[in-house]
Parts: sequence; structure tokens; C-alpha cells
Amino acid sequence: MRNRKPKNEPARRLVVLGGARGERREGAVWLVGAGPGDPDLLTIKALKALQGADVVVHDGLVSDEILDLAPAAARRISVAKRKSRHSYAQVEINRMLVAFAQEGLNVVRLKGGDPFIFGRGGEELEACREAGVDCHVVPGVTAALAAGANAGAPLTHRGSAQAVTFVTGHAASGSEPDLDWESLAKANQTVVIYMGVSTAAGIAGRLIGAGRAGSTPALVVENASRADERRVLTTLAGLPAATEQVAGPALLIVGEAMALALPTEEAAPAVLTEPKLELRR
Amino acid sequence: MRNRKPKNEPARRLVVLGGARGERREGAVWLVGAGPGDPDLLTIKALKALQGADVVVHDGLVSDEILDLAPAAARRISVAKRKSRHSYAQVEINRMLVAFAQEGLNVVRLKGGDPFIFGRGGEELEACREAGVDCHVVPGVTAALAAGANAGAPLTHRGSAQAVTFVTGHAASGSEPDLDWESLAKANQTVVIYMGVSTAAGIAGRLIGAGRAGSTPALVVENASRADERRVLTTLAGLPAATEQVAGPALLIVGEAMALALPTEEAAPAVLTEPKLELRR
Repeated sequence: MRNRKPKNEPARRLVVLGGARGERREGAVWLVGAGPGDPDLLTIKALKALQGADVVVHDGLVSDEILDLAPAAARRISVAKRKSRHSYAQVEINRMLVAFAQEGLNVVRLKGGDPFIFGRGGEELEACREAGVDCHVVPGVTAALAAGANAGAPLTHRGSAQAVTFVTGHAASGSEPDLDWESLAKANQTVVIYMGVSTAAGIAGRLIGAGRAGSTPALVVENASRADERRVLTTLAGLPAATEQVAGPALLIVGEAMALALPTEEAAPAVLTEPKLELRR
Repeated sequence: MRNRKPKNEPARRLVVLGGARGERREGAVWLVGAGPGDPDLLTIKALKALQGADVVVHDGLVSDEILDLAPAAARRISVAKRKSRHSYAQVEINRMLVAFAQEGLNVVRLKGGDPFIFGRGGEELEACREAGVDCHVVPGVTAALAAGANAGAPLTHRGSAQAVTFVTGHAASGSEPDLDWESLAKANQTVVIYMGVSTAAGIAGRLIGAGRAGSTPALVVENASRADERRVLTTLAGLPAATEQVAGPALLIVGEAMALALPTEEAAPAVLTEPKLELRR
């Protein structure tokens, strides 16, 4: 997982003089969390990794504003998973990452949020290990954290949320995910459902059926942390109707602490304009 | 929660000329996640907020390296919660934040990790709202994400971790936290226990008692992402013994996907040295 020596100098900076001819640089894969969307929610470490990339293999949710932080010479490959277009199977992405690294390139696999929260980063890491390729992981701000922050709604809170659980509403097969509804239906906890817009009605029905009150506060956050973020305050029973208004990627957050959430305001988000961050080589 | 106009210019930059004498600047509170420890895991937004601080009210876990990113003129107040020293009660911290903001200052409340994951940020936010003080929240990389990333162990993983739950092992009263053991004992999920070192034996016993296999892989991560990070690979049954070696703050992570975790290596962590980030005013 870790190098004894830094070996993440991009090829274009590698100046070979004298007897080093023919030396082969070792490549590596960096699984990097790009955060929820707002470029200011990148970590400094992610920014540095991106700046050292020879190749950037990215999801559809990563904005151009963030991709433009990679060197202009870096190759960009979108492996967006969209129903309407050709998309790469996970095994193809794994092979691509390994192949580029074996060519001696620094490969940044850039993912929305955090690589290990429903990002399938674990599968890519396993593929690298099997191939003997160095793989580093840079964590990121997962969307739930940004959604809670912007809504002013704590994911854990004394007296109303002693735990927080992240699940995915994406159903591998069929129309409904296979989750532990009994556990998720308990009160005094926050449940965050990633990728749950299309299955919201089934999820809400199951949670209510397992005993969670239909009046439990719920929050739908579309495009968390982006300029077009939109929040809909509702209840568990109101989730199906609330998600009908949603077009983009969204989180569903259910729990008593969501009573603190504020709706989207018309005002522009608080902007931090000073100081400027500059990259210096 | 959000301003129509940026009003986070520190007082020392406020140049009052002519007729503006006597104008009172509005203060604000920024609840800022400092990430898990590594200064490179700060977000750019957190760095900007810190740079705009008049006062920084911080936890004991925030390193000097991060605190030094605030302006030299900014006042620093530690509200570290240590058993052996005087510590501030939460209500005193709340009052302090509100009072500074009401004086027209930009108050950065800097917390390890994310403000809304066991950071008591919700209580501080509520205090600000009750006092009519603007409060902004900047999310951060919570320690669990960094711990998983560095260990190479995904918190969610196809086939072995369909959900991840964050709980606290801190017991409000008595020696054992009041958690939903039945839910946490289900297989195919990752359970992250924050602040659970002192209650590890009770937690392991309860989880095993509720049906989780004692052989479930478990990981103890001390000082996640810091230079002195240390990982101990164990099992649920082995947690009590593993935590006996731990001196600093640590996370306990239990789940099948922790089988992928790597122990601490002797090698120095991969260092990203280029490019340098510079702050420019």
C-alpha cells in the first residue's frame, strides 16, 4: 500500500540523464475521493494526487472544474455509468487501471465522494493487489457529510441520533434493495440512503412496515454541495412524493435529527473568496 | 445558515473610512471539520475558513500544524476534553461561540474529523440558532474514512459489507454504551466504533452475545492518518486484547471487509511532495 520512496513524479518531469537510460519507472494507482462536488471540498491530498496524474480515470459525477485541476497533459478517461450510453463494466475498469500502472503511469482513479463508501474502490484495490500494482487510497468527504453540513442537520446528535448508517438504495437485481429493514427501522438513528431515488417508494414502505414512524423527519438532497444543490424537507411517509421532484443524483436521509434541517434558501451559498489558493511547481 | 453577502472578512482587514464609523460588523460561527489529523486531509474550504478566523476554538485532537494555518493574529482557545485537566462543559463552549460572534468576530470552531459525526456540532449549531447567530458548517473527512483508506480496507464492499454504521463507544453513564446490539451483530456490514477503546471488552462481548461471529475480522486504528498511525489486525473476539496496546485515540472497525486490511508497515507513508500549495492574499 505504501512506498518506501515517493515514486509519483509524472513522466513529463522525469529527466533521464547519463547512465539511467532504459530505467523503467514503476506506476501506481491512486484511488482518490473527489468529495461531493464543490471543488473546495477536495482535500489538499486529493489535489496533490490529481496534480501528479498521468492518467485520470473518472466517474460521470466528477465535474470539469475538478478535472481541470489535473495537468493539461494528463489523459482523461470517463467511465461514467449512464444507462443510455456505453459504460465500462467494473472488471474492464479494473483491467484498465492495472494496465496503465504496469506501463509505468501514475493513474488517478477519481471518484465522487469517498472511494470506500459505495464507490467500488475495494474491488479496484483487490485487482491492483492481485496484479502486484501499488495502490494508494485518498479518502474524501462523502456526500452525506456535505448534505448534513449544508442543511444544518447533524447526522449524529445527542438525544435523537446515537448512530448513523449508510446504505445503498441501488438494487443489484429487481426493484428493491435487500437491506436489514428491522435494524434500519429503529428510532434514534440516522439512515442515509445513497442512490435511492428510484427505489424511494419501496424503501419508505419497508421502513414503515418494519415499524419506523411515517412521521420521522426525512430530507432529500439533490446535488449536495454543488451550485444547484436542492433540499426537500419531508417525512418518511412523504419520501416517495418528495423524490418525484428530483432529477439529479440525490441522497435520502431519514432520522429524528433531520428535524433540524433547513430547506434550500434562495440566497447564494456563503462564499469564501480569500485567500486564493495557488499551485506552485 | 447562509449569507447573502460574504461577511467573513477578518476585523484586521476591515478598513473603515469616512462615514462608516460606528458600523458594526456581524460575526459568524463556522463549525469546521479539520479531518482526521493529516493536514493534507483538510479540505480547501476548511483551510479558507481557518484563514478567515478571528478566533479559533479547537479540540485537543487538532494538531499545531493545522492550527498554525490560522492567521497569527487569531486568538486560539483550546477546549480539549481531558479527564485530568479543567475542561469546558458543552454549554460553556456554546456560550463562548455565541458571545464571540455577537462581538462581531469570525469564530472557527475547529473539530477533529467531521463536525456532525460525534462532534457535538449539532448542539453548537442549535445554540447559534437560538441566539440568532449565523452558523456555517464545513464538512470534513471523518476518521473512519481515513482509517479504511490507509488500511486498504473498504468500509462498504460488494459481497461483504452492504452497509456501514458509525456508533460511539463512549458511555454517557456507566461502563457500557447503550447500543442496538442485535442490529450491529448482523453479518455483511461494517461497524465503526468511535471512542471505544475503554469500552472495547464490553462491546465485543455484547456483539458476540447478540450473534456476531467472534471470528469476524476487526481492525484497531490508533491516530488514523497521523505520522504515528498504528493498525492492529484482529478479530471481534480479539478486540479487548488488541486495544490493550493502544494509548492514543483509536477507532475500532468490525466487519467482514476488514479481512482486506493491511497491518502498519515500517515504511514511511507515501509522500506527495509536489506541487506546493501556497496561500496568496
